[in-house]
Amino acid sequence: MPGMTSDSAASVRTHFLELKDRICSAFEGEESAARFRSDVWDRGDGGGGTTRVLLDGQVFEQVGVGFSHVSGPALPASSTVRRPELAGRGYEAMGVSVVVHPRNPHVPTSHMNVRFIVAKDPTGRLPVWWFGGGFDLTPYYGYREDCVDWHRTAREACAPFGDEVYARLKADCDDYFFLKHRNEPRGIGGVFFDDLDRWGFDRSFDFVRRVGAAYLDAYLPIVRRRRETPYGEREREFQLYRRGRYVEFNLVYDRGTLFGLQSGGRTESILMSLPPRVSWRYDWKPEPGTREAELYEEFLRPKEWV
Amino acid sequence: MPGMTSDSAASVRTHFLELKDRICSAFEGEESAARFRSDVWDRGDGGGGTTRVLLDGQVFEQVGVGFSHVSGPALPASSTVRRPELAGRGYEAMGVSVVVHPRNPHVPTSHMNVRFIVAKDPTGRLPVWWFGGGFDLTPYYGYREDCVDWHRTAREACAPFGDEVYARLKADCDDYFFLKHRNEPRGIGGVFFDDLDRWGFDRSFDFVRRVGAAYLDAYLPIVRRRRETPYGEREREFQLYRRGRYVEFNLVYDRGTLFGLQSGGRTESILMSLPPRVSWRYDWKPEPGTREAELYEEFLRPKEWV
Repeated sequence: MPGMTSDSAASVRTHFLELKDRICSAFEGEESAARFRSDVWDRGDGGGGTTRVLLDGQVFEQVGVGFSHVSGPALPASSTVRRPELAGRGYEAMGVSVVVHPRNPHVPTSHMNVRFIVAKDPTGRLPVWWFGGGFDLTPYYGYREDCVDWHRTAREACAPFGDEVYARLKADCDDYFFLKHRNEPRGIGGVFFDDLDRWGFDRSFDFVRRVGAAYLDAYLPIVRRRRETPYGEREREFQLYRRGRYVEFNLVYDRGTLFGLQSGGRTESILMSLPPRVSWRYDWKPEPGTREAELYEEFLRPKEWV
Repeated sequence: MPGMTSDSAASVRTHFLELKDRICSAFEGEESAARFRSDVWDRGDGGGGTTRVLLDGQVFEQVGVGFSHVSGPALPASSTVRRPELAGRGYEAMGVSVVVHPRNPHVPTSHMNVRFIVAKDPTGRLPVWWFGGGFDLTPYYGYREDCVDWHRTAREACAPFGDEVYARLKADCDDYFFLKHRNEPRGIGGVFFDDLDRWGFDRSFDFVRRVGAAYLDAYLPIVRRRRETPYGEREREFQLYRRGRYVEFNLVYDRGTLFGLQSGGRTESILMSLPPRVSWRYDWKPEPGTREAELYEEFLRPKEWV
């Protein structure tokens, strides 16, 4: 695979650190007083990271932004679904993850991740590397305009890389963020990619940079548009209930979560994706004709938004 | 393996149905008005079950009691950790599961399960069968007296079956209900068994009956002792926070949950184990010297209670 040099990992690291800072500043810019706390962690030879969490903001109930750069002797199975032959190799992995749980139920939850993985080559040949990542949106109350804007921004980020890229990554996102046991998508999707190396290093890295930048471009306008929408106990309860699905997805299916737990990562950093308050309600279903029912019928159905 | 006859499965089924009713009556007896609702479900050729849920009681925020009797063409891997050679066989499985989430944080959460599994024999010889089950306790605020009584009742139920039985099943319970990613037990344990066939059918079934009966004998006195204990927002918040661990265990590790989700079970019946309200709080730790810290230091450490 062409193009990775000895400086490549350092360039990606520098970019990821800068992206983390840019994202934190952007979210703090939406808050009057709430600020991120920052925890630096390391596990000795195995690398480390920085976890930044903003709690109890006016706009955001919780924002988690994580940077990690870890290495280990054996790539966990969860990171190599499509390349089982790499499981067990020494590896280096770095990434940035963002999960935002807003306070107002009219503001959707969002998630962004970019990652770079290098599987070392035991025979001394070139290491195998790939990028992964994407962003996806999880509304509680559906607004068609928000979904269209979100996906349009995603499509624009993909456009320079080929006409078919957005469609493929949008379909992969729908496939990935799906709760099989509920037969239900996690949200309205976005873009998702894994095993990205086919464009060579430079072009792949350029794509990853654009995805990181597009996330804020896509999300912040939605936050600003919905943050003042009035809501009451009913909407809050529905938000807490729907957050249960987020927990189910992350603990049962999410590869990043399983990778982290299996590779002995810092548990609090991995589970910062879980919402601060959640409810489950046995066999609850929305009443037909309500906005809650509309979420299931109109929004939690994979469709072409743009 | 001696002793299973053509009537054995029917006898177990009758007992499990009776146990379910007895448990529901007992919990309703602690409530003034709250009652179980009952949902009968079936999946055609694959069997079915009854899920009974009591919500919003004065004593119990949620109680789920499930009976299921299912069959399928291929035993899921999650049910055969110790007998991988049986994975993929046709099977029949029946069981009763109980999870109680009390309202008062001084009343511990409890869980009981008994199950009977038959793996069909493709060569036409005798089928392989086994029982599994047990009960375990998850306190929010620790009371030594409760833990000792709980384990004493468990020990008494085991005593007729051999002096070493309680110790072995207690150790298996500590091993099983453990959150590796937290390096933390789920609670203070109890007894847990799987692959029980070594005593032959009649004696194994007798043991399972005693375990089912002992659960109520162990739990109800604790409920009655703690249900009037005053508590406030602080204790409620700690309860919601600790319930997050329950969710993490059930979705990441619990074999019954994974068996259900993998075998296409009824999702709402499987996930009735999840607490009605939960919170996560990034990197939260109890203050030294508090009763919350005492839970971690004195109770969430495997130890001999009797």
